[in-house]
Amino acid sequence: MAAAPSLLILHPRLTLFTTTTLRPLSLLFPHHFSSTTTPNATGRSISLSSPPSDYTQKIDVNPPKGTRDFPPEDMRLRNWLFHHFRQVSELFGFEEVDYPVLESESLFIRKAGEEIRDQLYCFEDKGNRRVALRPELTPSLARLVIQKGKSVPLPIKWFAIGQCWRYERMTRGRRREHYQWNMDIIGVPDVTGEAELISSIVTFFKRIGITARDVGFKISSRKVLQEVLSLYSVPETSFAKACIIIDKMGKIPMEEIKKELKLVELSDDAIEDLLQVLSMKSLTELEEKLGDAGEAVRELKQLFSLAEKFGYSEWIQFDASVVRGLAYYTGIVFEGFDREGKLRAICGGGRYDRLLSTFGGDDIPACGFGFGDAVIIELLKERQLLPEVPVEVENIVCSLDPDLQGAAATVATLLRGKGQCVDLVLESKPLKWVFKRAARINARRLILVGKSEWERGMVNVKILSTGEQNQISLDDLH
Amino acid sequence: MAAAPSLLILHPRLTLFTTTTLRPLSLLFPHHFSSTTTPNATGRSISLSSPPSDYTQKIDVNPPKGTRDFPPEDMRLRNWLFHHFRQVSELFGFEEVDYPVLESESLFIRKAGEEIRDQLYCFEDKGNRRVALRPELTPSLARLVIQKGKSVPLPIKWFAIGQCWRYERMTRGRRREHYQWNMDIIGVPDVTGEAELISSIVTFFKRIGITARDVGFKISSRKVLQEVLSLYSVPETSFAKACIIIDKMGKIPMEEIKKELKLVELSDDAIEDLLQVLSMKSLTELEEKLGDAGEAVRELKQLFSLAEKFGYSEWIQFDASVVRGLAYYTGIVFEGFDREGKLRAICGGGRYDRLLSTFGGDDIPACGFGFGDAVIIELLKERQLLPEVPVEVENIVCSLDPDLQGAAATVATLLRGKGQCVDLVLESKPLKWVFKRAARINARRLILVGKSEWERGMVNVKILSTGEQNQISLDDLH
Repeated sequence: MAAAPSLLILHPRLTLFTTTTLRPLSLLFPHHFSSTTTPNATGRSISLSSPPSDYTQKIDVNPPKGTRDFPPEDMRLRNWLFHHFRQVSELFGFEEVDYPVLESESLFIRKAGEEIRDQLYCFEDKGNRRVALRPELTPSLARLVIQKGKSVPLPIKWFAIGQCWRYERMTRGRRREHYQWNMDIIGVPDVTGEAELISSIVTFFKRIGITARDVGFKISSRKVLQEVLSLYSVPETSFAKACIIIDKMGKIPMEEIKKELKLVELSDDAIEDLLQVLSMKSLTELEEKLGDAGEAVRELKQLFSLAEKFGYSEWIQFDASVVRGLAYYTGIVFEGFDREGKLRAICGGGRYDRLLSTFGGDDIPACGFGFGDAVIIELLKERQLLPEVPVEVENIVCSLDPDLQGAAATVATLLRGKGQCVDLVLESKPLKWVFKRAARINARRLILVGKSEWERGMVNVKILSTGEQNQISLDDLH
Repeated sequence: MAAAPSLLILHPRLTLFTTTTLRPLSLLFPHHFSSTTTPNATGRSISLSSPPSDYTQKIDVNPPKGTRDFPPEDMRLRNWLFHHFRQVSELFGFEEVDYPVLESESLFIRKAGEEIRDQLYCFEDKGNRRVALRPELTPSLARLVIQKGKSVPLPIKWFAIGQCWRYERMTRGRRREHYQWNMDIIGVPDVTGEAELISSIVTFFKRIGITARDVGFKISSRKVLQEVLSLYSVPETSFAKACIIIDKMGKIPMEEIKKELKLVELSDDAIEDLLQVLSMKSLTELEEKLGDAGEAVRELKQLFSLAEKFGYSEWIQFDASVVRGLAYYTGIVFEGFDREGKLRAICGGGRYDRLLSTFGGDDIPACGFGFGDAVIIELLKERQLLPEVPVEVENIVCSLDPDLQGAAATVATLLRGKGQCVDLVLESKPLKWVFKRAARINARRLILVGKSEWERGMVNVKILSTGEQNQISLDDLH
C-alpha cells in the first residue's frame, strides 16, 4: 500500500541562515517521508506526510533584527517585572490604560531634533496613511486625554505598560523594541505630582531589592535653563532645541555642543553662562545664581522637602545637567541612574504642562515618567538580584494504561475544577519519563491512574518531595 | 511685568476633524494665555505659558482607524478577560510565551488563498526588509519551536495572549487589530491533544458564566475532505486550497464555491460528493460513507469518547462543514459558535502536524487554537454577562491644610508600605471634592490629616460605608 507517486511531493532541502552569525549553517533538515499511508474506505491509500509544497519556504528562525521572542523562561521574568510595575502603580491608586501600538505618524513629529524623532519606525499603510509604531506612550496619553475631555474628572492618574519601537540603522546592542512602564498625573500643577511619581519608582526599586546604594535620581528643572536663557533674550522657539542639544552632553564632544547651541541663536555669553549653571550639583549654588524668587529654585526646594516626608531623600540629588531628551518637558525633570555608572539611564520623567496644546487641546498641567524593561534587567543581573522564577505546575496526572487515558482526563478535570493546576500526560509514556517531566515542571504531586485502583474509584497519589504514596478516592481528592 | 512681546507666540486656533464623522467639529480650543509670568533673579520676566510653536499641529484625537484605545474602564475589562485566559491556561499546565508583534512578512506568506494572507498588514522597513504586523500567532510559535530545537523537551504546552493585525480596506464593523489567546500542544500525535484544548476552552466559558446552552463546538477533521478527495485522485497541492474555498461556504454563493473548486482541479463528481459529505451532521452517517478504517472517523470517534470523560459532551457536535480558514490544518478542526447564530465564530483551532516542515524544520505533531477578544465580549454583552469591574482604591489620604501636604505624603507612604493602596490628594481641595473623589474610586477609608491631630501623631480615619470616624495613631494605622 505505497503512497501514490503523484501524491508524494519532495520537500526541498533547505539552507538556513541566521542573522546573528550571517554564516550558512547548512542544516539539512531530515524530513518525515515515512509515508504514514492510511487505508481508507475504498482500500485506496493517501499520503498525509508530505507538506503541501505550495507554501514551502525557508525562513529565518530568529525574530526580526532588534526584536525578541519570549520563550517561557523569559516570559516568566517579564511577567514578574510587569507584575511589580502593576502592583506599585495600583498601590499609588493609578488606573491602567493602553493605546494602539500603531499610531498616526503625526502624533510623534516634533521639530526639536530629538533622537526619538529620528528613530521613528514609520511607514505608509495600504490606505496611504503615514503611521508609526509608537516610540513612546506620552503622545498617545495626551491624545486620549484631549479626546476624553471633561468626561474624566481631574486629576487623572493613569499607568500603562506598552511596547515601544525605535528604528536604529546602527546596532549598538540596543534593541528596536522595548516595553515601557509609564505613570502620569494629569491635572496637578504642584510639585507634589513629581514627588509622588518618584516615590512610586522608589517603592518599585525597594520591592525588587534595589537600594539607594545601587540607584539614585538626578533632579533638575527645565525652568533653570529657561531662567538662564531669559537673561540673554533667547527666543522661546530655541528653548526645546537647546534642551535637546544639552541632553547630548557627555555623548558628543563639548565643541559640537557649543556649535549646535550657536545654531539655535544662543550667544557665546549665553552658552558660557548656561554651561556654568549646568555643571552645578548644589541647590544652594543654584539659588546664589538665580535668586530665590524664581519658580525653578522654589519648586526644586519644595521637591527636596517633600522627598523627606515621603522618605526617599537619600535616593535623590540635584544635578543641573539633567534636562532629558524629550522636547515637551517644561519643569522638573528627573532621571534614575545606576550609581556604578555602568548603565544608561534606568528611567526618566518630568513635568510637561504644555503638551496638550501642541496637539490642539487645552493645556492641563501634567507630569509623568517612562521606565524601560531593558536597563533594569541589566542592573538586576549586575547586582545578582535577578529572581529565579521557576515553572510550577502543582499536579501531574498520568494513566498507567492506554485504555485509562479517559480516566486520567476525568481526574484532571476534577482537580482543575477545584482550582488545582494539572499537567495531564496526553500519551502513553514510561514512568521514568513521567518522573522526569514532573521534576521539570516542579510538580508537588504525581497522580497515577491504574486499572485496579480505578475500578475501586481510587487513584495513586505520590507526594514528590517525600516519596509518600497513598491511594485516595476521587471524592477525597482535592 | 508683562511678558516680553518677542517671547509670546500666538497659538493658531485649530479645527479638529474626527474620522468617524468626517465633519469639521470646528472646535475652537480656548488656550491659556493668562501669561504666568515669572519674575527671575534679575527681575526680568519670562513667559512659560505659550507652547513652543515649532511643534504645534492639529491631530486627530481618535486612534487610527480600526484600532482601539483602552481607557481605564476598557482596560479593566481587558485585564479581567486576559486574567481568565491566563488562569485557565495555567490550570492546564501551559506556560506563557510571546513573540514580536512585527515579524518577517515571509513567515505569513502562504499561497492557499487564505483571507488572512490577503489582509496582511505588511510594509517595507527603513532597512528595506519586508515586515508585517502579525495576523496570527501560530507561525511565530512554529518559528520559535524550530529555533529552540531539541533544547525544549516535548510535549511543549504553551499559551500566548498577543495582539494581531489585519488590514481590511472595507470596514464592516471589524477592527484592524484584536488580541488573541492561543494554546498549543507540540509533540502529541494523539487526539488527546485536541480533547485537552477543547476542555480548556470549555473551562474558560464556564468560569465567565457561559453555558452549553449559549455556545457549542462544531467539530470535524480535514482528513474527512482528504479521504473524499483521495477517491478522485485530486492532487495534494489542491488540498489546502480546496479547504480555504470550502471555508467560504455560507459567505459567498454556492455557485461561486463550485467554480473556485473547479479551478483547483476538482471534477464535477468530486465536488458533488464533497458537498454531500460536507452537509453531514452525524458521525454515523460519515462512517457509512467513509467506512471505519480511516483516520478521520477513528479520530473523531475517539475525540467524542474523550469528551465524555472530560465531561463536555453536551458542548460538542460533529459538523462536516467545519474546515477552518487557515491552510495549515491537517486533522481535527473545531470552531466555537454562538447557538443563537448571531455572531461570527468565537474561537477555532485544530491539528497542524506539518506546519514546521513548511518553514524548513522537522515536523512535529501539533494542535492549537486561537480565541479572539472581540466576539466573546459581544456574546457577553448579548447575554448580559459582562462583568462590572469597578475601580477600587482602598484608601484616600488628604491633608486639611496646605502645610500638611508633606504629612499626608508620610501617611500615604506608611500605608503603602503595609500593602494598602492609597490615592493621595496632591492639592488643597475642599472636603466636598474629596468625598466625591472617594466615591468615584470606591475608597473604603478616608484618612484626613489635620493640624491638631497630627501634632499628637494621630490622623482622622473615616470608614466611608458606615460614616464611622476615629482618631488613630500612626503606629496603629494599617
